[in-house]
Amino acid sequence: MRNIRLMIEYDGTRYLGWQRLGDSDKTIQGKIENILTQMTRTKVEIIGSGRTDAGTHARGQIANFKTDSKMALSEMIEFLNRYLPQDIVVKNMEEVPERFHARYNAEGKKYSYYVWHEVIPSAFERNYSFHYSEKLDFDLMNEACHKMMGTHDFIGFSSLKKTKKSTTRTIDELSIQKEGSLIHFTFVGDGFLHKMVRILMGTLLEIGSGSMELEAIDEVFEHKVRSDAGMTVPAQGLFLDEVYYRE
Amino acid sequence: MRNIRLMIEYDGTRYLGWQRLGDSDKTIQGKIENILTQMTRTKVEIIGSGRTDAGTHARGQIANFKTDSKMALSEMIEFLNRYLPQDIVVKNMEEVPERFHARYNAEGKKYSYYVWHEVIPSAFERNYSFHYSEKLDFDLMNEACHKMMGTHDFIGFSSLKKTKKSTTRTIDELSIQKEGSLIHFTFVGDGFLHKMVRILMGTLLEIGSGSMELEAIDEVFEHKVRSDAGMTVPAQGLFLDEVYYRE
Repeated sequence: MRNIRLMIEYDGTRYLGWQRLGDSDKTIQGKIENILTQMTRTKVEIIGSGRTDAGTHARGQIANFKTDSKMALSEMIEFLNRYLPQDIVVKNMEEVPERFHARYNAEGKKYSYYVWHEVIPSAFERNYSFHYSEKLDFDLMNEACHKMMGTHDFIGFSSLKKTKKSTTRTIDELSIQKEGSLIHFTFVGDGFLHKMVRILMGTLLEIGSGSMELEAIDEVFEHKVRSDAGMTVPAQGLFLDEVYYRE
Repeated sequence: MRNIRLMIEYDGTRYLGWQRLGDSDKTIQGKIENILTQMTRTKVEIIGSGRTDAGTHARGQIANFKTDSKMALSEMIEFLNRYLPQDIVVKNMEEVPERFHARYNAEGKKYSYYVWHEVIPSAFERNYSFHYSEKLDFDLMNEACHKMMGTHDFIGFSSLKKTKKSTTRTIDELSIQKEGSLIHFTFVGDGFLHKMVRILMGTLLEIGSGSMELEAIDEVFEHKVRSDAGMTVPAQGLFLDEVYYRE
């Protein structure tokens, strides 16, 4: 069996998210599996590095699948990009060792979140950013980023209920860049719990706009209570940029 | 009567273009007029600086309308952006002298055209650029830009039939910039005939890829025959950036 790894870019606007839901035609995984199944004439299942929520985008989602097909990779990528909808694009494909598993082997991820920081909305950024026009204190937000970085139990910054699995994660980078009217937040870490980036983002914005204290972050780490953290910002500002694997 | 000038941004993807077509709900002008008519409770007609084709976008379309309404401009802009679809945004409004006419007074326009210059398409740029993967000679394209600049009869580079109106126009700037995988073409001139930017673009790309000679430009200026020029590139790569008026 060949093991094939794909890098996938998608505009999540029209989809219910990455993960296949029964026969629904409205997930990224489902769309790709359907085309691969047509292409190889045997049922194909793909393993993604992780799920993305409805409306969330990806510039570098990684997935793998196994197949007996003898088709050349260059033909496969052409076939996929011809038959996939235009908002899902396979950027590259490569053959990997049989043991490669896109989810289990993922050692880290990079996400971007964009805020459209103007009073007037943007016709072009509407599906790719969160429109937020409150005045923001960037010094305070940078301090908040520093508090969030490092190794912590992030369960209070997630939508998870109590679980036996570890909810400790390490954030290696959390930085803020102004790019014209957009504010670009970058998150790099060894893993992110469900909705963690979006709740950290909501907390950063509420601290920056003065509706939440900087110290609230310490309390969420200590008491692990979701309702002490900030709002969950909308999915459409979120991009999965990169998934890291050991070479 | 007050005369009010608007600057409008729109994502043209879902629309049949700027110009109202009967009762169709699928034009930018129609959408804005409907909301203004609701707002002022009298039938409003707006005058745009010019039409844009189906799928073409605008970052700075200018229009004006006359009204008896006493509503403050800040309330008007809020009303419009609340009820317009999210892909049409009024960026600003100001009161102008009664003689101001968005079309007759326009003295120039700036357009951008984007080419996604990669073999693999882009999920995000699909509606905002033309995917063209032929190898391009930028030196040749720059020479072609120089030939196109200046004052010429552009009828051969337009979709117009013979007309009594002048088809002479002046292009003041035509420049090419690489922005990552995108190629950004900028056109500034005193006016552009129907489809002129898209046909000049097609001609530039065919010269750049070697399927048309540089000298073809002189022949189109001389013989004024549309079929001697290049292809008409798709509307979705085209943006109306700015309309110029005398102060």
